[in-house]
Amino acid sequence: MGAVMMTDAGSLCLPADDRFSLKDGERVDFVGEHQRFGIIQSDEVFSFSLDALFLGQFATVHSSDRVIDLGTGNGILPLLLLNRAYQPKQVIGVEIQPRLADMATRSVLGNGLQKKIEIVRLDLKNAVWQFGAEQFDLVVSNPPYRPQAAGDASQNEHKRIAKHEIYCTLEEVIGTAARLVKTGGKVAFVHRADRLVDVLFQMRINKVEPKRLRLVHPYIDREPSLVLVEGIKNGGPELRILPPLIVHEQEGTYTAEIKELYARS
Amino acid sequence: MGAVMMTDAGSLCLPADDRFSLKDGERVDFVGEHQRFGIIQSDEVFSFSLDALFLGQFATVHSSDRVIDLGTGNGILPLLLLNRAYQPKQVIGVEIQPRLADMATRSVLGNGLQKKIEIVRLDLKNAVWQFGAEQFDLVVSNPPYRPQAAGDASQNEHKRIAKHEIYCTLEEVIGTAARLVKTGGKVAFVHRADRLVDVLFQMRINKVEPKRLRLVHPYIDREPSLVLVEGIKNGGPELRILPPLIVHEQEGTYTAEIKELYARS
Repeated sequence: MGAVMMTDAGSLCLPADDRFSLKDGERVDFVGEHQRFGIIQSDEVFSFSLDALFLGQFATVHSSDRVIDLGTGNGILPLLLLNRAYQPKQVIGVEIQPRLADMATRSVLGNGLQKKIEIVRLDLKNAVWQFGAEQFDLVVSNPPYRPQAAGDASQNEHKRIAKHEIYCTLEEVIGTAARLVKTGGKVAFVHRADRLVDVLFQMRINKVEPKRLRLVHPYIDREPSLVLVEGIKNGGPELRILPPLIVHEQEGTYTAEIKELYARS
Repeated sequence: MGAVMMTDAGSLCLPADDRFSLKDGERVDFVGEHQRFGIIQSDEVFSFSLDALFLGQFATVHSSDRVIDLGTGNGILPLLLLNRAYQPKQVIGVEIQPRLADMATRSVLGNGLQKKIEIVRLDLKNAVWQFGAEQFDLVVSNPPYRPQAAGDASQNEHKRIAKHEIYCTLEEVIGTAARLVKTGGKVAFVHRADRLVDVLFQMRINKVEPKRLRLVHPYIDREPSLVLVEGIKNGGPELRILPPLIVHEQEGTYTAEIKELYARS
């Protein structure tokens, strides 16, 4: 990831057209190997977090996969999935907020990826009606984490919706993912560690059996903050838990794995 | 833990009575701070593993607690719980195998702990009928781990029963624990990491909400082999995941935490 500030969108190859130009407060950051993709970000509206990088690396992707990202925000996960060694065939990013869907759409156009990524402005709860049941090989989601009641009133509307369970609950995200994925297909989430039981429980009752789990710890001797979980639709029971993902070696120093993740993402 | 071989049971203070003497192939090992408790072991019949030490340290114990151990084997967990800083008031150890229940009973007598520990020869599935529902503050269990089909025919009957789901399934152990524990009381298990989803799922559907989880990894960069889970009867959702428990620093060297656990257990 390159946190490069840009005053114009030259490197993003945005067509010289008002529909594609950067709006107030927006910047372009670069992600992917050799910073191959530009992504429009905004501190006021939406900028992606480490969580997306973790999930973009964790999900199992095959080159023939048709993928859907539920709640794509500014479209970070579709870009990260196209950065993987085996690029999926197509990624659909679903986003309910018009402002974020617009940012994501402009990033797709700017990278010339309109044949690989489609951004759809849609409530994810309606995704099964829009795309049909069991149409995807992989469903990914970095859903809002916090209960609605915990909403921080100081946040603006865009961030509140992206971070809190306002438009969708965890149950709705998992239930929708379970209906979108084919039998034998995969569903991968990143979520808060304290919701692990909810995630695993909802996956199993929706017949997406959890098969891979990884915990993300800020330090080796601290409790994990995040969980990465991948399940298989109608898979048999038996979970594989990976070694812990440790973020910091010590205060201010990333571990080798995180440095490599940053370099690759 | 002191892996001391003994040819007589002098230090265990076994009464000079045939009922209490060591049988063929049995030895006495010592556990607890300053090796305070003797325990009868036998390589042919039953000897406890690291798993029991982990659970004996992990479970939350209060000094007024009435505790039950489902499948106590040679009675290792009751001894380890009495070694804790806050000794429970009473521990009942339930064991279906007469030979193991006999070993456990002789260890209790040898340590003069008959007022604190009661060993009961019983199928754990009948424990609710024997002791009544919701009578315990804490239920612990290190149940058989392996599916019945995977039974190693080379093992003798005692070990097969202790290690495989022959007399009880995971569902039965968790269901029984859930009925024995009081509302607000705790249930703590150690189990194989690949069964984590089963453990958490069965706990939740039995209304023992998982509240504390710890994964045991042989090395920091390896997958965990074991999980330690504690739930609260009728507790609210929200799981606390502890830092990983790492066993080896490198080949042949224990981590500081394991050395301390050994010294204290």
